[in-house]
Amino acid sequence: MTDERLARAALTATAEPGDALLNRVIDRLGPVGAVEAIRTGDIPGDLLSERVVRRVEHWRIRSAAADPGRDLEICERLGGRLLCPGDPEWPTTLDDLGGERPYALWLRGPGDLRNTCLRSVAMVGSRAASSYGLRLAAGFAADLAERGWTVVSGGALGIDAAAHRGALAADGPTIAVLANGVDVPYPASNDGLFAEIARRTLLVSESPPGVEPHRLRFLVRNRVIAALCRGTVVVEAEARSGALSTAAWTRRLGRVLMAVPGPVDSRTSVGCHKLLRDDPSATLVTRSEEIIEAVGRIGDDLAPVPSGPVLPRDRLEPTARAVLEALPARGAAGPAQIAVKAGVDLATVNGKLGLLAAGGFVERCSGGWRLTKSAKQPK
Amino acid sequence: MTDERLARAALTATAEPGDALLNRVIDRLGPVGAVEAIRTGDIPGDLLSERVVRRVEHWRIRSAAADPGRDLEICERLGGRLLCPGDPEWPTTLDDLGGERPYALWLRGPGDLRNTCLRSVAMVGSRAASSYGLRLAAGFAADLAERGWTVVSGGALGIDAAAHRGALAADGPTIAVLANGVDVPYPASNDGLFAEIARRTLLVSESPPGVEPHRLRFLVRNRVIAALCRGTVVVEAEARSGALSTAAWTRRLGRVLMAVPGPVDSRTSVGCHKLLRDDPSATLVTRSEEIIEAVGRIGDDLAPVPSGPVLPRDRLEPTARAVLEALPARGAAGPAQIAVKAGVDLATVNGKLGLLAAGGFVERCSGGWRLTKSAKQPK
Repeated sequence: MTDERLARAALTATAEPGDALLNRVIDRLGPVGAVEAIRTGDIPGDLLSERVVRRVEHWRIRSAAADPGRDLEICERLGGRLLCPGDPEWPTTLDDLGGERPYALWLRGPGDLRNTCLRSVAMVGSRAASSYGLRLAAGFAADLAERGWTVVSGGALGIDAAAHRGALAADGPTIAVLANGVDVPYPASNDGLFAEIARRTLLVSESPPGVEPHRLRFLVRNRVIAALCRGTVVVEAEARSGALSTAAWTRRLGRVLMAVPGPVDSRTSVGCHKLLRDDPSATLVTRSEEIIEAVGRIGDDLAPVPSGPVLPRDRLEPTARAVLEALPARGAAGPAQIAVKAGVDLATVNGKLGLLAAGGFVERCSGGWRLTKSAKQPK
Repeated sequence: MTDERLARAALTATAEPGDALLNRVIDRLGPVGAVEAIRTGDIPGDLLSERVVRRVEHWRIRSAAADPGRDLEICERLGGRLLCPGDPEWPTTLDDLGGERPYALWLRGPGDLRNTCLRSVAMVGSRAASSYGLRLAAGFAADLAERGWTVVSGGALGIDAAAHRGALAADGPTIAVLANGVDVPYPASNDGLFAEIARRTLLVSESPPGVEPHRLRFLVRNRVIAALCRGTVVVEAEARSGALSTAAWTRRLGRVLMAVPGPVDSRTSVGCHKLLRDDPSATLVTRSEEIIEAVGRIGDDLAPVPSGPVLPRDRLEPTARAVLEALPARGAAGPAQIAVKAGVDLATVNGKLGLLAAGGFVERCSGGWRLTKSAKQPK
């Protein structure tokens, strides 16, 4: 465990997620320096203002109480890990959040966050959903999963849970981004669902293990859901629904915003209709094919379509190319084998493999990494 | 009855509605000349082509069989009349149809077509509507009627009938534009509805009395519905519904196109969702307030809002102003009284009253014509 990793773990326990001031401090001093500055109160003067003094004092108190080593230990015991910016598995789509990006993410489960989110759709909506909305969410999620799309949601009651369950029913990957620690089963009735997601894919949180949900954190969490995916489908939403905050983030991040219509006299479709009326960028969707068509359209901007790499092999930089060429033509190889064959160190191999996966050249498999079908074809 | 009127009556019996070739012949020769040219086969050579010879021969046969005098008599006996382009009551919005404008319209009922359509909304949809659609159509129509809007539809089963009935229930004006003669009760089960509309407002047709409905005429008729109104609401429509042809005309004519969403698994909402997905100009509406907001927005382009005349009195041309000033400050006057007081002939008075009504200065009432509320206020 590097100091930097430990520092980032500490920072997730220090400030509320996505604090732009803390991200500025990290940008300036690095994570280790940021932790130190908070501890000593030595925040760079030009970043401080009267307005934020209280917040920084609050950080100091929380930082003193934080025990990042123990948090990391707990998470590891749960089969989890801390994912930091710069890690090969870090989804670069999160960088679109700018000053509000996460300091780090706590993960629980066997999935690779970056790869799993390359082709992902957020599906969100009311907690107090109607049977109509629940049926659609489960059906859309199952269809998306069957076609190789990851369904991302917030693990809440109602539409969120129906979407996760639909994806699981189709044996597909689904990710729950929680507003509490990955070991806190909230809501309690989704306990079994969380266990299943942690067993199959990933639970994700910006907060360390043990952190309880908080009303404000739900809204802040929504930006991560929007940023991870190519687009967001609002299945059902009341006039004032948290799902509309995910929609707003989706719009702000330039992702595809979709909403499902419903009966005009249904309370839980009012928010969807409002979105479709007020936001010219919002697309009305009624079938999973329409969802896939909408997110597929901008595919090349965010991630390659699975049919072939966007970047030709010969435009890869030398190290990435060496790693790619170290992969066997058939079958798979582990990172250590690849490192030896490519003549680079293991950390570099891991980094390049992540980039090559994002480029559609390689994919994870049980034996390690292998060439994608399209990467095998000469270009 | 002038020759010109008789000729137009004959033309409605001669060709299918909205024939651009016939409209060109009328433009060139006038209605009387057009009838004569059809009878003698003497169509101007530059308008004729091999492609249309058959059609013109068909006109000749139908023209020979037509009895416009008798048609006019039958219509009059039913409390009806023939409305011709140039009449004060002729809605100039129909001119937007260009080459496909009606040759004349057969009306049945006491309403003034032009005035009644100044603030009108077309409400159309599936014959095989769901209870959801029927309930909404009736509710929207009643709301619109209560707020002084005329509901125009096609008199068909399903959404059309529900819209007419909703307007009637709110004691509001409603107009049925039929694809058959105004004396032909089609569909038969709407017999009572047609009688009530004829008693209260207007039945409208491009075809003379006695003409039976024909599949093609339904689609051609839809352009009149679209042209008469400021906007069209598609309440429910299957994937291939006649209502979508009204929607296409609405779009082509630059009117406001609206569609009501519904459950995505409802067969009769598929067409509405398709419109909302495919046509960026289509507005999703869920409440009557949203319909009024949408058509009200472009109000000034098509017709004045009822709160006050758009044109100040002193910008009226002298004859119109004389007619306006001949109206009593309180109560009403008949055209003959007004003619005497203004010192102009009856035909001129009728013409100017139509224009003044379109300008929001005067309105029809049981005693003839009266000043509108806003016209009474000094400007």
